[in-house]
Formats: sequence, structure tokens, C-alpha cells
Amino acid sequence: MRIIDFRSDTVTKPSPEMWNKLKTLDNSNLGDDVEGEDPTVNELERKAAKLVGKEAAILASSGTQGNLISLLSQTSPGDEILIEERSHIYKWEVGGAARLGGLMVRTFPSNKGSFIPSKLQPLIRHKDIHEPVTSLICLENTHNDHGGIALPISLFKETESFANKNNLKIHLDGARIFNAAVALNQPVTEFTKFVDSVQFCLSKGLSCPIGSILAGSSEMINKARKFRKMVGGGMRQAGIIAAMPLVALESKWIARLAEDQKNAFRLYEGLLDSGLKINVQKPDTNILMVGFPENAPMSKIIELLNNDGIKTHDTDQRIRFVTHYGLNEDDVDYSIEIILKTFKKFFDSF
Amino acid sequence: MRIIDFRSDTVTKPSPEMWNKLKTLDNSNLGDDVEGEDPTVNELERKAAKLVGKEAAILASSGTQGNLISLLSQTSPGDEILIEERSHIYKWEVGGAARLGGLMVRTFPSNKGSFIPSKLQPLIRHKDIHEPVTSLICLENTHNDHGGIALPISLFKETESFANKNNLKIHLDGARIFNAAVALNQPVTEFTKFVDSVQFCLSKGLSCPIGSILAGSSEMINKARKFRKMVGGGMRQAGIIAAMPLVALESKWIARLAEDQKNAFRLYEGLLDSGLKINVQKPDTNILMVGFPENAPMSKIIELLNNDGIKTHDTDQRIRFVTHYGLNEDDVDYSIEIILKTFKKFFDSF
Amino acid sequence: MRIIDFRSDTVTKPSPEMWNKLKTLDNSNLGDDVEGEDPTVNELERKAAKLVGKEAAILASSGTQGNLISLLSQTSPGDEILIEERSHIYKWEVGGAARLGGLMVRTFPSNKGSFIPSKLQPLIRHKDIHEPVTSLICLENTHNDHGGIALPISLFKETESFANKNNLKIHLDGARIFNAAVALNQPVTEFTKFVDSVQFCLSKGLSCPIGSILAGSSEMINKARKFRKMVGGGMRQAGIIAAMPLVALESKWIARLAEDQKNAFRLYEGLLDSGLKINVQKPDTNILMVGFPENAPMSKIIELLNNDGIKTHDTDQRIRFVTHYGLNEDDVDYSIEIILKTFKKFFDSF
Amino acid sequence: MRIIDFRSDTVTKPSPEMWNKLKTLDNSNLGDDVEGEDPTVNELERKAAKLVGKEAAILASSGTQGNLISLLSQTSPGDEILIEERSHIYKWEVGGAARLGGLMVRTFPSNKGSFIPSKLQPLIRHKDIHEPVTSLICLENTHNDHGGIALPISLFKETESFANKNNLKIHLDGARIFNAAVALNQPVTEFTKFVDSVQFCLSKGLSCPIGSILAGSSEMINKARKFRKMVGGGMRQAGIIAAMPLVALESKWIARLAEDQKNAFRLYEGLLDSGLKINVQKPDTNILMVGFPENAPMSKIIELLNNDGIKTHDTDQRIRFVTHYGLNEDDVDYSIEIILKTFKKFFDSF
Repeated sequence: MRIIDFRSDTVTKPSPEMWNKLKTLDNSNLGDDVEGEDPTVNELERKAAKLVGKEAAILASSGTQGNLISLLSQTSPGDEILIEERSHIYKWEVGGAARLGGLMVRTFPSNKGSFIPSKLQPLIRHKDIHEPVTSLICLENTHNDHGGIALPISLFKETESFANKNNLKIHLDGARIFNAAVALNQPVTEFTKFVDSVQFCLSKGLSCPIGSILAGSSEMINKARKFRKMVGGGMRQAGIIAAMPLVALESKWIARLAEDQKNAFRLYEGLLDSGLKINVQKPDTNILMVGFPENAPMSKIIELLNNDGIKTHDTDQRIRFVTHYGLNEDDVDYSIEIILKTFKKFFDSF
Repeated sequence: MRIIDFRSDTVTKPSPEMWNKLKTLDNSNLGDDVEGEDPTVNELERKAAKLVGKEAAILASSGTQGNLISLLSQTSPGDEILIEERSHIYKWEVGGAARLGGLMVRTFPSNKGSFIPSKLQPLIRHKDIHEPVTSLICLENTHNDHGGIALPISLFKETESFANKNNLKIHLDGARIFNAAVALNQPVTEFTKFVDSVQFCLSKGLSCPIGSILAGSSEMINKARKFRKMVGGGMRQAGIIAAMPLVALESKWIARLAEDQKNAFRLYEGLLDSGLKINVQKPDTNILMVGFPENAPMSKIIELLNNDGIKTHDTDQRIRFVTHYGLNEDDVDYSIEIILKTFKKFFDSF
Repeated sequence: MRIIDFRSDTVTKPSPEMWNKLKTLDNSNLGDDVEGEDPTVNELERKAAKLVGKEAAILASSGTQGNLISLLSQTSPGDEILIEERSHIYKWEVGGAARLGGLMVRTFPSNKGSFIPSKLQPLIRHKDIHEPVTSLICLENTHNDHGGIALPISLFKETESFANKNNLKIHLDGARIFNAAVALNQPVTEFTKFVDSVQFCLSKGLSCPIGSILAGSSEMINKARKFRKMVGGGMRQAGIIAAMPLVALESKWIARLAEDQKNAFRLYEGLLDSGLKINVQKPDTNILMVGFPENAPMSKIIELLNNDGIKTHDTDQRIRFVTHYGLNEDDVDYSIEIILKTFKKFFDSF
Repeated sequence: MRIIDFRSDTVTKPSPEMWNKLKTLDNSNLGDDVEGEDPTVNELERKAAKLVGKEAAILASSGTQGNLISLLSQTSPGDEILIEERSHIYKWEVGGAARLGGLMVRTFPSNKGSFIPSKLQPLIRHKDIHEPVTSLICLENTHNDHGGIALPISLFKETESFANKNNLKIHLDGARIFNAAVALNQPVTEFTKFVDSVQFCLSKGLSCPIGSILAGSSEMINKARKFRKMVGGGMRQAGIIAAMPLVALESKWIARLAEDQKNAFRLYEGLLDSGLKINVQKPDTNILMVGFPENAPMSKIIELLNNDGIKTHDTDQRIRFVTHYGLNEDDVDYSIEIILKTFKKFFDSF
């Protein structure tokens, strides 16, 4: 059976150019990265920092690790941080911010990821013996759980004002920041220049097997390097991880994200006028959310789709379809047909 | 100048009966409480447990400590707990839940303290490698920051259902649970029977100098006893703290809280028809909240009142007036006059 | 049956002067200490700071709490601290330093509490990505677990040199520092001037019911005040705790500790030539340690003594006898007789 | 200049067979390991578990991470663990056990890594309100900091008895357990059968670029998987890391460690009779320690060696020479000549 995997862009396999890059490596390209001697890692960190306009960068094992060491480096245990309530750091990172960082994680609601920073003023803590210190605010762009929403530069600018006023650091969970930059047709630095630290994933839309980049000031990255060591993320000849990302950071590869976006839109159009009781959210980037009635048994739908070769995940009465490298127009067209048929089957018996 | 202190019921001084009780103590009433040998503490803990219908109780130095050791005893670091966003544990306890307990503190909004527990279902975490475990929900009654709201028994019953369904413990921050019980004319056990643990303060409406009680199952209180030791809350001849509360737990003294409530209502009526741009919230219990326009400089008003002998605190553009033992009708009537004059002066120059 | 309680000086009851002090209190002596308004607490903190030659002091609920908030205020989570391996903070404070403070607690051995600070140099961590930062060293004087040893000023001086060289803070667990000062006939400030912070207990030799003092710089005490709030040690009308210690801090009362020392020595002499297989350690202060053979069942001996009215604790094959206010020469003489008889009974059947 | 790198076996580059294995990978060998779908990782974890005789295994980014998630999975914050005072987990893992795990880390001395477990009995905590719970003991084999000592099976057996008696888990930091097994000519399972969990490194003697294995019961590994996620060690197409270790786990490759041992011995013999004031410790495995006088400026010696092309690290007045894949007899012979010449130069001017 033909299998189409929409679960996540984390399932992507490397491109032929990436495989080539990996396979041209030899011992001369490797070194002990804990000693700072891996030339491939060093090249990647240098290029990655430059790409997002920061002084320094560090390779992390995952987006979760990049986010974690950023928080650990920029806060003290007992501080409070502000984060949108459906953001990845809050929802899907195992509570590490509190468990490992001792942080109060204050969530706030948004309108599909958008919010007015100045309206958060009442959440800022006072200098008072009863209160923790508010020290950092997180952004996420694109915003995964709201459906790959590309948040505009204006939000970054306003967040910077708010942060400056209140002496906060800003961390950007930019796991998919390049999807946002491509969607909004802006240089990525137009976003990152407003934040103190940015994490972006190599293993999602950029389709590398492993890794994330955390970038920021040299001082902050030095602290993060020690915290990376503490969590066991310091690796030795990490060049075998860093090689493929060197291909992925080339501008043509980043530009390729536009294709994923087109495919998500194609899927959206294909599912739009089904006449079924679904709510197909217009996608900004490579994530399409399809909402179901409150009482629909989602695990049942997921299972039906899976039986027909369409792999997806659900969250909060929505199915998430993620387009990515390895899925083309034909895959989408084929999927539309299967998905509609499966949905119909589901609603008929629902 | 005549001073009326509305800042909090924590400023209360002991009653003559309490002083008498303290002054009749001698060495025979004291022992080393870390060894479990203080007869006065033992009597207090036994009576307090009985009063709220629990197996066991422990004397804590403060409400903050009672709440903290309850959380530490009923959760594991890395768990998530649910708590209304303006509750005391979240706002005013220095972030100890995260800093000391490693807990993710998930806040949710309410309608003046009221909420529909079943609507929190989406906040419950799944059994998933990406997610912490939701293990406890907090209630606060009366709800201080919403203005001493007395939350009804029905909320407790619904919370219990919700907790049972989701395998959560329930902790009640009942710092002022007796104010709620008196206001709603219900035995306190009608509230506490729905919760796993309850903390109530001896040093607020009950007007003792020091202390809070945490009550729950014997197993939980044993754990709490070790955590109390860890935070340094284990005291020696603690009978000198425990004596006055023995008076405070007598039913007539608890019944006295009705007077504070009457005085708060008297104050409310006195301020109601002032013609000023203030929002006087009808009080359920002994806390009166008076709202001011968004741009009113609150520290200025507080200072003006203070200069006229009226002590208060403000929070979120509201002045909080707390009535308590030591304030009588005459104090209230006198205060109304002063307060209105001061408010008028403020608005005139505002 | 006549009961003599040698378990600890924590079991002491207040003196008549202390009771008098407590009983002359009225409302004017109390205030809300969280607001800094309790005159009795303020007087105690001021006098206590002066007594040990520090800028500021804070009242804590216990020695454990005083030590804990000192560590929290002078280290960061992840730091390493150095502490003698049988010190109270390491052995008997529930691991709070690690559990609540995130500290690596590095123990080192000593010769009955004495050690050569410069020999600890190899324990100091390097500035290296693999290592925590060593930030504080603890002293304990008198040293409880080694038998109330009074450590000399020279050790303090050498520790200060070592600490300065390595950029460490020094915290003194001086739960019984006055016993040391009296035994060595030195002003207490001759010890405390070498340390950044000192905790001393009011509820041990000084025989107050409750409380400890933490003293240090104003900046440090301000931090400690916030951590005290976090652990729930902030109390309201704490004057009822602080009153008796005002008596205890008078020089004649501190001088009284010499009596406890004499009584411990009297007990030592009485047990010395028993002909039994016990090792009676010559006491420096008010703690007498009597060692037993490796295979002696200590709980049995404790039980036999208890049955004869002599209350003690054991630790590591030793029985600890603590003399204190409330025990006089006659109590000691009576006890010697009973103890020897009981020991003989034990060894006969051993 | 000819460079010989004795700093660590972490600097090893992959063998030709490993490169071949990596370069035969294609997309079919990769999958999303967070979803459990990477066939290469799955094969590695299965084979690794079998090799050390455990139910299950998990790939970690580093030895530090393997050790950390083992401790997190088998203890609760606030527990105490026992560990030899020069072990890697205590010395070189950034204090993560305390900072992230909330653990009291109790060190004990040894005789070059050897100790008598039953003698640790006094370190076991009692069930007492003042004490943490002792829950785990660590072993390290070979013991790095003592000079690659291969600890005998008898120590494991005795540790198991001690652990059983005291209800402790045993974690083996077996970063170089295969070096020990080869040196003592024993199957590795003769060691691992005595422990609850074992971590071994792929990136040291086994010469893979990245990774460690943690093995234990399925239940424990499941917990470790969640903690790995929390610290950000969950990776996606981790097959690119896992491929080379499949070669490394073949028995002939493990047997190759005997060569490193021979080379260390050859180096030892070459440096033994130098007539210089050095203390050359006879090596058990691939680590040679050369001791220097207490006042010798080690950084100077390291620099001189480095200038002559011999790379090493020092610790506690010793230079550590580590032999490993990539260094052969000729490298050793050449190095002996250079090292002696350099040492002589150093002592001449010392």
C-alpha cells in the first residue's frame, strides 16, 4: 500500500545532496567537539550564527535541548517566564523548564498565536518579597499548535518593546522560523534581530536527520555550552551530525520550504469543500489543521486513515497534516482522494 | 491620629482570652515537638484535624508553608498542577512550587474564582513521552484576590468528580475557609470532605499571632512532617505558638467571623453611592475590593489614605479593605467618612 | 520515677525570667513581621546582629531553616559546597541543600572536627566545562556529632585565608557557638568575624522554646528574607517567639552555659573509671559521647536507660549525653549512679 | 610535526569498516527514533542490551547523559547516592546529579578504586525524619581517574550483597567496561549481572564518533526514555549515529581493546626507568598515569609536551596518557623518546 506520512516534518529523510555530503566525510572532517576541535561542527555553528545574525551558535541534539539550555542560560531557578499557552515549550517538552530549571511557567492565551505584548503587563511580577522575578518571554514562530501560523515581524517588534520595558530576555523557539521567513518573504534576521536567543531545528523542514541550533550572544552561548554538557548533550566527533546541515543551510534549500507550503495549500483546497463536518484551517505554512466536532472519537479517525496509508497525529479534536520534503503534488492529490473517502466513511458511521 | 488598619486580617492581635491562655502556660504545657512531645501542639493538631474532618493535622509556620508542604507531599518534581490564575499559591508564594517543588504550575482563568471543572479537561496531560503528569488541582476558598469570594459547595463537588476522573489530588488553600463556611452557613466539613488536603490559617480571621494548619490523611501528614523538617519548619517547644489557637478553634470564635463580614458589608454600603468613579464590589465575606480607573495612580491613593490614618494595600487597580478582629462598627463608620473625603480629594486632582 | 533527659538541649524549657518576659507582653509588643512591624522581633534581630558583630540578622524557625536560607542566599543551584562529613547540615537536615538548593554537597573528613583548610585545596573545582563551581564552605562550632568539640579561633582564621584564596563564602553553623565561646573564654565575635554568615540556635543551650538567628551582611539577610518567605518561614506576630530570646541574649544567660559544661564534665568524671568496655570522651562543652563496642546493640542500651528514667539518643555506636538548663549537679550525680548500674547490667548480659 | 594524541580515547576516529557501514546507509535505514521507528537504532539497542545481558537498552548522546538519565530513573529528588570520590559522575559531570536530580551525592574514598562495600554501612541513612533516603550506589569500571584500574568481579558481587541488604540500586558507569572485561579476560556479563543499570560508551575505546548505551530492565529504560526526552536527548533519524556502533559491538572489535592495553604497557615500560622524579603507575588497561612532585607546575609540562607534538591532559599532579585506536607500537616508541626528552628538559629547569 502507498503510505503518505503527514505526521510531522521530523520524519523527513535526507536529500541526495545531504547523503553525498555525509559520504564525502573522512577522518579529517572530524574532531572531538567537547574540546572544540570538530571542524565540521565549527563550520556549522559559525554559518548558523551568521545566518540568524547572532554572535555565536551551538549545535544541540534536538529542539527541546536547544530550548532547554537557552532557558537555563538566561534565567535563574525560581524566576518566572511568560509563554503562550499552546506553545511547544509549554506543551511538549516534558515540563523540563520547571523540573530541571525550577521555573514558574506562566502561560497566556492568544488569538491563533497572536497577542498584544503590552496587554501582558499585568503578568509582570513586582519587586516584592512575595513574588518571583519575571525574567524571560518566549515566542514561537511558526506556531505549531495553532496550525503553523507565521507570526509577523510586528509582533517581534512589540515584544521587544515590552521586554525592554520590563527587563526581560526574549527566547524564540524558531523550530520552524525559516518556514515563517519564507511564508512572509522576509529575511530570517528581520525576526531574529528582535530576540536574545533563537533555536531552530535542522531535523524538521530542513530535513536533516538530527539536530538544532541555538544562537545568541557569545556570553550566552558559552553558558549554554556548559548546560549542554550538564544534560549530556556534549558529543565527540559530532561532525557526522553536522555535515548534512551544512547542505541544509544553503539558501536554495531553505527556499525549498515554499514547496511544502504550496503542498499544504493544495491539500487545504482539496479538503475545503467536502460538505463534511470538518473545519479546514487555511494554512500559512506547511501545517494544515482540520478540526472535528467535539464528540468525534479522534483515535478512530486516525486509525481509519492509517489503515488507508495516511499517517497523521491528532491534538485537541484536530488532525494535523504536515507537508515536508519527500512529499510532492502527486502525493497530495492522491492523499486528498483517500482522506475524503476515509472521512466520509467515518462520518457515515459516526 | 486615629489609625484604622484594613491591610489584612494578618495584622490582628490576639483576644484577651488568647492572652489568658498563653499566660496560663507553664513548663508542663511544653515539650519538644520535633520529638512529638509538645502536649499543646498535639492537642491543637488533634482538634484541628477533627474540626475539618481529617485523620491528621500538622502545625505549619504560615499558610505558605502549609501549602508548600502539601504540594511537596502529594506530587513529584516534574508533575503539573492546576491552579486558578489569581490564587494565592500562584501569585504570592514566591514561586516555591516551581523552585522548590519542580512543579509546572498551570494557571487557568475564572469568573471571580468560579469555574467549571469539567471545562478544564483539555488541560489534563496525556500519558505521553512529551508530557508531564497532571497530579493535583488547587482550590482557594475564600478566594482572596477576587475579593474574598465564598465559593459554593457545588464547586467542590464538581472538582472532586473531575479529580476522580483524572486521578488528581485536590488541595484546598483554605486560609480563610472558615470565613466561607460562616458566610454560606455551612459546616466547614461540607467543603473539606471533598478535598485530600486543606490548609487553614490561624493568623488571619482567627486572629492568632502565628501559624497554619495542614490537614489530610495520616499518610500524607507524615510525609508533610518530613518536608516541614526539610524547610526548617520543625520547631521545639511550639506550644507557645499552639496555645492561642486552641482558643481560636472554639466555635464561638469561629462564629465571630460573621462580624467581620457585617463590617465589610457596612463599609461597602458606606462607599457605594459616592458618585465617584470607583467600582465597589459587593463583599461575600471580610474583603472589600474597590476598583479604580485603569490610569489611576494607585500608590498615590494608598499614600493619601495612609496620611489620613487609613491603611490599605492595592493590587491590579483595586484597593483591598479587609475587616477583622479589632475593627468595630464605629471604626467602619469613621473610616467611611475619611475614605470618601480622601477619594474625593484624589479624584478632584486626578 | 525520676526522669533525667539527656537527649538534647533542645528539650529545655524556658527560665522563669523568660516566662515573665512572655507574660508581660501585650498587643503593643506585637506587629506583622512580614511587614517588618513586630517591635519585639525587630529588637531581637537588631540585638542578635550586634551580638555576633554583623550588619543584620533574621529570625528563623529553626537551625535547619537558618542554615538552609543561608545556603540558598549565598550559592546558586549547581554550585558545590564543602562540609565536614559529620556536620549537622550534612547529616541531619534531610538533604535540603541538594533537594531544595540543587547543591553538590562535598564532604571531607576531620580529626574530631578539626582539619587543615589548605589541605582541602584539591577539592576546589576548576573553571572547566565539566565542573560545578565551588562557592561556599561550612563550619560547625561546637561540633555536635564529634561530641560538642569547641573548635579554636585558629581554624576560623585559616578557613578565612583558604576561602579568600578560592573565592568562597563561609557559613558557620553556630547552633552552639556560644558554648564554644564560653568554653574557650573568647568573645563570640572572635569567631564570627571570620565568617560571612552565622546561624545560632535560641532553642538549644539558650533554652528558648523556638527559633534561630541567621546573621550576616544586610544584602545577604535581605536575600535570606525572601527565601524564608519562600519556605513559609515568614510569620506574623512573631513577637511571641522573639520575646523570650531577648532574655536569653543577655550576657549572664549566655555565661550560664559554663554550668552545662561543668555538669558534662562531672558526668564524664563519674563514668570514667567504670571498668566497663566503654570509651568516655572528655567533653569540651555540654555534650558527652560514650562509645560502645562495635557489636553492641545500641537500641537495647537506650531502652534499658530509658526504663531507668535516663533519656538519651545514640549515633554510630555512641550514646550522647547533653547537659542543659534544667539539669543540675544533683541530677548528674543521681544519673551517674543509675547509668553505671544500667551499663553494668547491659554488659553482664551482652 | 608528528602529533601523538594521548589526551583521551574520546579523540578516536572511526575505523574503515565503520565508515563503510555509515556509507552504505540509505533512507531505508533511517526513521524517526522519537517514534521508535529508526531501524538502525532499534537494532543497536537490541544488540547492546543482549551484549550486557539486560532486558532493554537506550542510545544516549554521551556517557554523561547515560549516567544522568539512569540516576533520574532510579532515584527521587532528595535521595542520597553513594559514589567513590574520584569517580567520573562525581568529578566531571557538572554536578548534574544535584542540580538536575536534587540528589545528595555522598562520596567515599577508595584504594585505587577498590573498597569494601560492607565498610560503607555507616553511610547508609536511617529511616528518620532528619535524613534523606539512601537509594543507589555507583560503580565505575574501569576506574578512569585512578588510572584505568580494572576492578574485579568480586567487588561487584560484594556490592550486590551490600545493595541488597540496604535496598539500594546499583548503577555501573561502565564507560570503559569492555576494557575491564578484556583486561580481566571475563565476559562483560560477569560484571553487568550484578548491577541494575550499566552505561557504556561507544565513543571511547570502541572509537565511534558519538554515543553511549544505557541498559537495564525494560521498566527502567522506559523511564529513562522519558528523561532522555526531557533533557533533549531524543533524536530523530538517529540511525546515522547508531550505524557505526553496530560495527563496534562485534566481538573482534571489542577484543581489539587488548592492543590499547599492550600499548599502554609498552609506554609504561618505556617511561619506567627514567631516573626522573616521576611515579609511573603500572597500567591495568589503556590509561597510564605518571605522577609528578607536589610542586611541579603541571601546565608547564603539558605545554612542553604539546610543543613537541605529544598531547596530554593532567589532573592532580599526574599526566594521563590514554592509548586508543589509531595509536600503534611505533607511535608509542616514538612518543617514549620524545616524552623522556621533554621530561628531562623540564626537570633540568625545575
